[in-house]
Amino acid sequence: MPRLILIRHGQSQWNLENRFTGWWDVDVTEKGAAEAFAAGELLKAKGILPTTAFTSLQKRAIKTLHLALEAAGRIWIPEDKDWRLNERHYGGLTGLDKAETAAKHGDEQVKVWRRSFDIPPPPLEAGSEFDLASDPRYAGIAVPNTESLKDTIARVLPCWDEKIAPALRAGETVLVSAHGNSLRALVKHLSGISDADITGLEIPTGQPIVYELDDNLAEIERYYLSER
Amino acid sequence: MPRLILIRHGQSQWNLENRFTGWWDVDVTEKGAAEAFAAGELLKAKGILPTTAFTSLQKRAIKTLHLALEAAGRIWIPEDKDWRLNERHYGGLTGLDKAETAAKHGDEQVKVWRRSFDIPPPPLEAGSEFDLASDPRYAGIAVPNTESLKDTIARVLPCWDEKIAPALRAGETVLVSAHGNSLRALVKHLSGISDADITGLEIPTGQPIVYELDDNLAEIERYYLSER
Repeated sequence: MPRLILIRHGQSQWNLENRFTGWWDVDVTEKGAAEAFAAGELLKAKGILPTTAFTSLQKRAIKTLHLALEAAGRIWIPEDKDWRLNERHYGGLTGLDKAETAAKHGDEQVKVWRRSFDIPPPPLEAGSEFDLASDPRYAGIAVPNTESLKDTIARVLPCWDEKIAPALRAGETVLVSAHGNSLRALVKHLSGISDADITGLEIPTGQPIVYELDDNLAEIERYYLSER
Repeated sequence: MPRLILIRHGQSQWNLENRFTGWWDVDVTEKGAAEAFAAGELLKAKGILPTTAFTSLQKRAIKTLHLALEAAGRIWIPEDKDWRLNERHYGGLTGLDKAETAAKHGDEQVKVWRRSFDIPPPPLEAGSEFDLASDPRYAGIAVPNTESLKDTIARVLPCWDEKIAPALRAGETVLVSAHGNSLRALVKHLSGISDADITGLEIPTGQPIVYELDDNLAEIERYYLSER
């Protein structure tokens, strides 16, 4: 029976500071690293052992993967890092904390960007310190300068189709270590959640979510591993 | 110009205790982790930045890779873990320290096993606690029960031919994080060292060795990065 494990990276420095992070490459905090390690210990304790892994090109997800795999005794499994599993790009909101965002754009407008499915925030301004167009890790990739959740889903699902689903069909127990919105994309797809509802679905950091799937990769069951 | 960087894992607990380790999956010490991180800082300081990486299935090499890549700002590059880059299998010597080995086999015999090119130590005894035949990481692999350096080279070089050399030819700057004897295999091949001389070549832990290669992957220059 194909099995998929999703883990949102442990707390990052900008989670802690309530800043929009998106594609900016912020590290996990000590607490976040501990969450990641604990997630791996839980996998081991429950005997849910991944045989292959996917993650983004962002260090908070990659380090979460490495810490979880180490704790699970599985640091040796293959891992594939794919930009399409990156967090949603928050455009011009990148780097702003709650107060700065509200002061610049107003609470109501921010709520719209946070909660709407297909309205992206304003694009990153030209010359922004957060511009990643020349970052070598994204060479050959058309780096977005903002994304709606819909835009994020549109690049996550091809990664699912090309890599993750085939691994599951081949009998692998797949671990995906990624981000709030790239994981929402997978949960929306697998659990058939509506456009209206998905923006309100919160994915907690460092909590393994397990999908038991049938041979067509349809959901049989989804649960937090900590609750089993 | 193709460029290859070799790093032997940082100090492991059994390096410290002078035990034969081989395929047993011993962790790096704190000192070893610091060596690995320092190796990555050196890569960054010298601007020798890997674009793809290979390592073994052993955590001391994998963790060394992760720490070095993190320090170099390159944790996002692809990494390929291959059992053929594992350390030489020390057979029945696995787990023995210097004194135990000498007591069991005599100093002269131990010197022969350490220094000969093609004489393997006695095989791992049946039922040994160090038997890895049923370890899931080696599923589908004929786990050796002892190896000479010659045996080790015979499985490292196909990995070079199939994976590492093609990556170099494709223009990648390749980092290999591995072990004393799997790296000896690569150095012997690239620098044309004789069977008699290779067993005496010591590769220090956590010290990046850089090969500048020509288009046929022949050595132009080999140096310790710390000396540049």
